[in-house]
Amino acid sequence: MTDTSSLPVYPHRHLLGIRELSPVDIELLLDRADAAVAISRRHEKKTSTLRGRTQINLFYEASTRTQSSFELAGKRLGADVMNMSVASSSVKKGETLIDTAMTLNAMRPDILIIRHASAGAAALLAQKVGCSVVNAGDGAHEHPTQALLDALTIRRAKGRIAGLSVAICGDILHSRVARSNILLLNALGAGVRVVAPSTLLPSGIAQMGVTVCPTMAEGLKGADVVMMLRLQRERMQGAFVPSIREYFRYFGLDAEKLKAAKDDALVMHPGPMNRGVEIASEIADGPQSVIQEQVEMGVAVRMAVMEALLDPRRRPSEDYA
Amino acid sequence: MTDTSSLPVYPHRHLLGIRELSPVDIELLLDRADAAVAISRRHEKKTSTLRGRTQINLFYEASTRTQSSFELAGKRLGADVMNMSVASSSVKKGETLIDTAMTLNAMRPDILIIRHASAGAAALLAQKVGCSVVNAGDGAHEHPTQALLDALTIRRAKGRIAGLSVAICGDILHSRVARSNILLLNALGAGVRVVAPSTLLPSGIAQMGVTVCPTMAEGLKGADVVMMLRLQRERMQGAFVPSIREYFRYFGLDAEKLKAAKDDALVMHPGPMNRGVEIASEIADGPQSVIQEQVEMGVAVRMAVMEALLDPRRRPSEDYA
Amino acid sequence: MTDTSSLPVYPHRHLLGIRELSPVDIELLLDRADAAVAISRRHEKKTSTLRGRTQINLFYEASTRTQSSFELAGKRLGADVMNMSVASSSVKKGETLIDTAMTLNAMRPDILIIRHASAGAAALLAQKVGCSVVNAGDGAHEHPTQALLDALTIRRAKGRIAGLSVAICGDILHSRVARSNILLLNALGAGVRVVAPSTLLPSGIAQMGVTVCPTMAEGLKGADVVMMLRLQRERMQGAFVPSIREYFRYFGLDAEKLKAAKDDALVMHPGPMNRGVEIASEIADGPQSVIQEQVEMGVAVRMAVMEALLDPRRRPSEDYA
Repeated sequence: MTDTSSLPVYPHRHLLGIRELSPVDIELLLDRADAAVAISRRHEKKTSTLRGRTQINLFYEASTRTQSSFELAGKRLGADVMNMSVASSSVKKGETLIDTAMTLNAMRPDILIIRHASAGAAALLAQKVGCSVVNAGDGAHEHPTQALLDALTIRRAKGRIAGLSVAICGDILHSRVARSNILLLNALGAGVRVVAPSTLLPSGIAQMGVTVCPTMAEGLKGADVVMMLRLQRERMQGAFVPSIREYFRYFGLDAEKLKAAKDDALVMHPGPMNRGVEIASEIADGPQSVIQEQVEMGVAVRMAVMEALLDPRRRPSEDYA
Repeated sequence: MTDTSSLPVYPHRHLLGIRELSPVDIELLLDRADAAVAISRRHEKKTSTLRGRTQINLFYEASTRTQSSFELAGKRLGADVMNMSVASSSVKKGETLIDTAMTLNAMRPDILIIRHASAGAAALLAQKVGCSVVNAGDGAHEHPTQALLDALTIRRAKGRIAGLSVAICGDILHSRVARSNILLLNALGAGVRVVAPSTLLPSGIAQMGVTVCPTMAEGLKGADVVMMLRLQRERMQGAFVPSIREYFRYFGLDAEKLKAAKDDALVMHPGPMNRGVEIASEIADGPQSVIQEQVEMGVAVRMAVMEALLDPRRRPSEDYA
Repeated sequence: MTDTSSLPVYPHRHLLGIRELSPVDIELLLDRADAAVAISRRHEKKTSTLRGRTQINLFYEASTRTQSSFELAGKRLGADVMNMSVASSSVKKGETLIDTAMTLNAMRPDILIIRHASAGAAALLAQKVGCSVVNAGDGAHEHPTQALLDALTIRRAKGRIAGLSVAICGDILHSRVARSNILLLNALGAGVRVVAPSTLLPSGIAQMGVTVCPTMAEGLKGADVVMMLRLQRERMQGAFVPSIREYFRYFGLDAEKLKAAKDDALVMHPGPMNRGVEIASEIADGPQSVIQEQVEMGVAVRMAVMEALLDPRRRPSEDYA
């Protein structure tokens, strides 16, 4: 990627969450990602930026799109990528996360991509290992590359983030996606509203600098961007699982509810979608939807993040001792 | 592959079934595959024909040999290959085939290899995605690369396909292999007989241009090629599952039954074999067996198919918009 | 790896067990591995030694560290690496080990890495296939690359193997690691003691040239190296499964028991560890522990083994016929 060599050197070694990033950090990653988009649109979608570097994807939760996105990002940068399928690994023999990570670390990876059900898992690893760590989702805490790809999608469509009005709708309680997006959008000067039934709102949400709206009509009014979240029924218990029909009626995005937003409002969803639950198919596949572009931007953002973290200019003589 | 650059440009973008191919198309793929065989026999079994291209293997049914064959074919052409292990993917979260495919498509693959339990799955994807699609088996419909590798094996052993007499024996009803082979062999001018118990014959078989033979003695008489099929007991139900002993007695290939064919008749099987069910071990491992060569030709055929579909001469300026 | 080209040519085609190796063979592999360590410590940890070679990892037993180690070793040598996830493969359709191996062999791999629950599985494959075979653990028989990496770790820390006193402690009965280590350490002139409860000692242990010690105090007295083994409770039955508390009390390595060994004794464990069962956490993470170095040496040893087996000088004109 010839045109990123003139970009400023990125100051962090890990990407654990949006909270640790300054607006300048975020803009730098988005600029790098903009440059990376072109690579995946070529026939020969391959650079040698990370040639000979080792990337390990350590996914404790299955994920089609996130793991694939990181895998393709690494391969397109020329890295050697190894997937650790945890379901079939020694974890079944009772090894701890730290022991697994230390073992992988001893194999001298350059970067470890971790998804785990526990909040803080990525930060814990970052303290232990000698390589860069990227948080690909840790419990209900953060999913920073998702927020970055959402921001890139918005910025490319709208030309800016600052001053936009963004409605994040649905299962906020279980969503690391919502949390990372709120942090990033606030940092870049967007106004964020959240729309959810009260049972799907985390208790501290009012302190996060968002406007809480009890109805879609109120939350979407004049919005530039409507972000729908996946209803994570698999994380809910007994009496608190909403009925799908009721949920869709009040909180599912359909043509009628979307009318409250601006005419050119973007419709987004991190996937995988529950069609007919949180979003109607006609909207998911409609002209305002940028759901496919989010996926494409995901590869670009992950390329940018890995390039930035492993930029040889930042640690020119930092080979392992 | 220097010697394929002078081959004619292949006219199709996808490989969905043998039915869509002309005899000229088939011969062109077989010629390319002949050239590809040499690559896998070298120490450095690697070209840069598909360097920087992204191949995704999306297998909804497990398969040792087919997925491995496609993976090695892609790697030997220099492509970046990503396997989607569907059992551990978001499909478990209820995402549809189309949504999964559209997500992968947004990651800008060049070619998608799909195996699925539903007939027509590959064709459906080809209508939706922006990349080439190869059908690696769709329900009981088609398995075109299997038919191509079988034809390559026969052509290399016998020097031709036209005019040969080929007996396809066993579980025709559940076999996409049989179907694709019948289409291909007919297209290239071979005579095809099918041998099966009546319960394992599809109803429209007589319209496919084959001779139906109720006994192995009749079906194999003077045959140049004997293709055995795997008895797919896992797809059968209750009363219709034949007894293995009875099945082997009447339809299993053993030395006695093979005598009816020509002395130099080839014995073929697409694998994995049920030894002692549809074929005796002494025949599977005997001098007339080309079962291992079929596997080797499988890699060559898949290299040829992917090269042909992604030939840069065919779409010289067709980068993604 | 420029500096291995001047090393002697290695005389074997397969690595099935330590038993088949001469002391010269072992030292040659360790010398090659010493040279390979540096590669994984570079930023660009990649050579082209095995460019275009095909490595297949055929693991019938799950293993985080061994499979990962072989995968990274192959990739760092430039090979194309394919993992066969047996749990999701045709093995479920009842195909035999030999048929699976013959199928893979027909795809023209250069090297097959096999782990299997049956002793002798690797040797059986080596008789059947046309490529090199490496035993990555076969039942309770051998695990030669583990013994080599242990020896490399010791040699780098102590400067030699000959004359050292090594205590191997714990579940000797179920341990191919113990077996391979005993063979290797004896071959290179170390003195080996084994410490285990009588129920976890194989019957023929006394004939293996080791001193059997009933207590840790006796076994560790003056030892240069203390190798702890994983307690493989999953391989034990009913009444013979020891209580963890009792086991740790008598055979778990803690600070008190370690005092019996030399002050600079190395503490080793092949992983994954049962902390608090065979080893106390403070010892596993303590200053005498070389457990992480063992993992790092594992990649180097596997690089060395594959390079040595596939050395083009050994079979210069041996392309497939």
